[in-house]
Amino acid sequence: MITPTATLLVSCPDRPGLVAKIANFIYANGGNIIHADQHTDFTTGLFLNRIEWQLEGFNLPREVISTAFAAIAKPIEANWQLHFSDSIPRIAIWVTKQNHCLLDLLWRQKAQELPAQIPLIISNHPNLKYIAEQFDIDFHHIPITKETKSEQEAKQLELLKQYQIDLVVLAKYMQILSADFVTKFPNIINIHHSFLPAFAGANPYQRAYERGVKVIGATAHYVTKDLDEGPIIEQEVTHVSHRDTVGDLIRKGKDLERLVLSRAVRLHLQNRVLVYGNRTVVFS
Amino acid sequence: MITPTATLLVSCPDRPGLVAKIANFIYANGGNIIHADQHTDFTTGLFLNRIEWQLEGFNLPREVISTAFAAIAKPIEANWQLHFSDSIPRIAIWVTKQNHCLLDLLWRQKAQELPAQIPLIISNHPNLKYIAEQFDIDFHHIPITKETKSEQEAKQLELLKQYQIDLVVLAKYMQILSADFVTKFPNIINIHHSFLPAFAGANPYQRAYERGVKVIGATAHYVTKDLDEGPIIEQEVTHVSHRDTVGDLIRKGKDLERLVLSRAVRLHLQNRVLVYGNRTVVFS
Amino acid sequence: MITPTATLLVSCPDRPGLVAKIANFIYANGGNIIHADQHTDFTTGLFLNRIEWQLEGFNLPREVISTAFAAIAKPIEANWQLHFSDSIPRIAIWVTKQNHCLLDLLWRQKAQELPAQIPLIISNHPNLKYIAEQFDIDFHHIPITKETKSEQEAKQLELLKQYQIDLVVLAKYMQILSADFVTKFPNIINIHHSFLPAFAGANPYQRAYERGVKVIGATAHYVTKDLDEGPIIEQEVTHVSHRDTVGDLIRKGKDLERLVLSRAVRLHLQNRVLVYGNRTVVFS
Amino acid sequence: MITPTATLLVSCPDRPGLVAKIANFIYANGGNIIHADQHTDFTTGLFLNRIEWQLEGFNLPREVISTAFAAIAKPIEANWQLHFSDSIPRIAIWVTKQNHCLLDLLWRQKAQELPAQIPLIISNHPNLKYIAEQFDIDFHHIPITKETKSEQEAKQLELLKQYQIDLVVLAKYMQILSADFVTKFPNIINIHHSFLPAFAGANPYQRAYERGVKVIGATAHYVTKDLDEGPIIEQEVTHVSHRDTVGDLIRKGKDLERLVLSRAVRLHLQNRVLVYGNRTVVFS
Repeated sequence: MITPTATLLVSCPDRPGLVAKIANFIYANGGNIIHADQHTDFTTGLFLNRIEWQLEGFNLPREVISTAFAAIAKPIEANWQLHFSDSIPRIAIWVTKQNHCLLDLLWRQKAQELPAQIPLIISNHPNLKYIAEQFDIDFHHIPITKETKSEQEAKQLELLKQYQIDLVVLAKYMQILSADFVTKFPNIINIHHSFLPAFAGANPYQRAYERGVKVIGATAHYVTKDLDEGPIIEQEVTHVSHRDTVGDLIRKGKDLERLVLSRAVRLHLQNRVLVYGNRTVVFS
Repeated sequence: MITPTATLLVSCPDRPGLVAKIANFIYANGGNIIHADQHTDFTTGLFLNRIEWQLEGFNLPREVISTAFAAIAKPIEANWQLHFSDSIPRIAIWVTKQNHCLLDLLWRQKAQELPAQIPLIISNHPNLKYIAEQFDIDFHHIPITKETKSEQEAKQLELLKQYQIDLVVLAKYMQILSADFVTKFPNIINIHHSFLPAFAGANPYQRAYERGVKVIGATAHYVTKDLDEGPIIEQEVTHVSHRDTVGDLIRKGKDLERLVLSRAVRLHLQNRVLVYGNRTVVFS
Repeated sequence: MITPTATLLVSCPDRPGLVAKIANFIYANGGNIIHADQHTDFTTGLFLNRIEWQLEGFNLPREVISTAFAAIAKPIEANWQLHFSDSIPRIAIWVTKQNHCLLDLLWRQKAQELPAQIPLIISNHPNLKYIAEQFDIDFHHIPITKETKSEQEAKQLELLKQYQIDLVVLAKYMQILSADFVTKFPNIINIHHSFLPAFAGANPYQRAYERGVKVIGATAHYVTKDLDEGPIIEQEVTHVSHRDTVGDLIRKGKDLERLVLSRAVRLHLQNRVLVYGNRTVVFS
Repeated sequence: MITPTATLLVSCPDRPGLVAKIANFIYANGGNIIHADQHTDFTTGLFLNRIEWQLEGFNLPREVISTAFAAIAKPIEANWQLHFSDSIPRIAIWVTKQNHCLLDLLWRQKAQELPAQIPLIISNHPNLKYIAEQFDIDFHHIPITKETKSEQEAKQLELLKQYQIDLVVLAKYMQILSADFVTKFPNIINIHHSFLPAFAGANPYQRAYERGVKVIGATAHYVTKDLDEGPIIEQEVTHVSHRDTVGDLIRKGKDLERLVLSRAVRLHLQNRVLVYGNRTVVFS
């Protein structure tokens, strides 16, 4: 699996022949499929598909694949994306003061668990600059106040453009993005420190403690205009007991947060996540 | 551990000497402690304690222990309960139409996992009468409508009294008990088919499906006047994916529900659960 | 998904065009695929595939599908099975004295979680006959001694034939089947009461206790001539602590055993398990 | 809980009055107990106890507590340890080439999850020296060959003495310590990359893959002369599937390893682990 692959993510109204159509497109051009998975959502009548094949021996030049597949996609009214495994996405990680998710992502990137470049870290506080320096990554401190928010978001968007960022990862960024920002840059993954929809909003660990729950969780989701309501990619939980103080919940939660966020980012980077409505198909 | 034991559950304001005081009471009377566990809740300043000792060789006759301990409990302002392991509690199981939790509890009682008698099953529907007959347990069909609710609750209370019931287990009883009922009979455990506080209220699996969660759960809690807000005893979760329909969530949820409910009932019967405020200490 | 479906399980040497070939076969005959999943095992160079489609609207009559697909399968050197969702398999459950797995399977069959008939229970002890009677299932008591084993196995094989059994489920059957028996009837699922390969053989809970493990497990696997070495279908685990006696491990283990066994049987009945070498692909 | 505490870990033959004796010792000297937990192992007849109290207001000077408690411990034939929460243990971390456990421990120490100093890193390879430098910790490269082993172990022991090390943590140190070494320095925690006793020895992930298990695990244990046989402190597991290659098992295993090892080290540092025979009581 060392040779480069192409991956198609396709969703369209279900009808007979879709698997054959897509598989034939690849086979007819000499491609060898290494992963093919499909899901039919019967409540929405949607066909959702992921197909990955080796580019070695594939007869179509890369730059032509899109055009060629478009001819197939149009009559079946498909939404689709095409990705190449050797075209490495560029991530911007946004943080505030907590370092655990940031360090975890950076370590995994170095350990080649995350097929991505990370050229940019943005924070509303200067605290984590030293980590950016350690890893030789550009760090931009962009403080946010109510008054400066829209102006600062413009600056952030400018940076994303300048660094050619494909994906923003909110790794404990404790600010809410405006609806306008999300519209302009919709490719954002956030980690929420609770098992959504429980304890949406602020201070989830304090509220979990007060409610006396026996399990806590963390949720990675795409960011939409509605806070904490975006499509969920991954969730994980751990047991807690009466012995756990709020501080213990926060400590245990950190382990969940870094696991869940890194899994979600990895799945996204492998083009295994397909969003439809407010739900995701995770082809794993 | 075959010989009978006594168990004290104690909660009182924290101060030095409490462990010694309680342990001395038992030792001075010749008791051998087989389980002692305590928890200090620093946010409320409460000392919470469970202590269990063998009655064999204990110098105080059973009927005197309460009086003797009351003398110790008063100056430390303690709330406390005394239980004997060979005094078997009597459970009424309440159901509607689903049989999985009922069957599970009955099987565990037969398998001696639950130290309790189950002389009574109450249902607002007649469907599960055949199970009561199979296990030779009295079954009372008490249908509930808005109009008859208060009258029928009076009947239910009368039955609990008549059968000398110590604990009501709501094993998928799909009716809400009135605040008045809960005040008159406060010893009730319910299974809620979600990971509370997520999806409190009706149709949690449908709503979990719509939200696209990746984990579902079940919650066993004591019933209070506030629906789905009582102290949580036990929670468990399981992973789900886009492949799971609402029907699959319901199926997987049933496995969670019977596990969680039976664990909670067992913990309660072993006098391992101490409620304070809206929280529980589970000495396990 | 109420209408009947056909499912093909295919394994063959990997080469380009396999997904297309199989999908085309179905599409060309008017079938609508509702589940298609494939896996390529790069260490063995095997292509492993599951494809399920609706028979409604499929142009080939059922009795012809096998012959038609054989023509495709031969040149690609495929091993394959064809199953129809409305052809309900017949299960024989084998037990000894413990009833938890048996009752769980019977309850799930009644609850329509297991698409199978269960016409036969075989045991080397008479203890669980009462359950067979309750569920109106034939019960055969076939005691086994060293001397009578081969003779009794002949009797067992005869019964499997007579009842037209497709699958034997060893639901805590505490006897070892001879290699000869397994050769003659290879379709057998067993539940082993440990997390294999830990504690293979006898008394796993006792040995787990002695080793002081913090997690115990259960394993459902196909039975082969080598005891506890067959292909694993499903495993599950639970945490234990120093407080758990051997009796507690056994009790907690029962919950694992019934969950794991029923999941494995369900996956098998849905034709989601493909064995290759000593491994399984579980298309779930 | 900010004020310093003392903790007693006690094991002795079970008899009446032990809880009272120990609690009285603390109360009589004005101590306020903040954690008391005991376990009776009925198979060995052992009483095992952990008790922690605030030193503020305790009448005995620290240097006298040991002598005073010895008078109580002697007649009850107790093994016991006394620890002060503000006496910070010194850890040496031993590594080979993999950095994930090392980085995790260092991060947790900085995040104040591990109440310890880490003045020393020892490795049989030079690869991770850069991390030691980043964290400003002394790094000693001590290569091991069959011929030099005993000589190098002498050097290692000398370093442990020189740095006044209390605990050695083998954080993926891929060398076996000699029985002699373990006798001379018995306070060692190791992370084994499998769910022991499954896959003891070398290459556990490769063997787990070949066996086709559906769950993998990691085990933290104290090191004894018998390889992979020491008392288990903590175990954790995760699900895997046919899609996971050996490389995926290794990747998922790393997450388990760092979680399990750090939990075990934390429990040890909080004096929550009591070893008896080849088992542990974990008072958590």
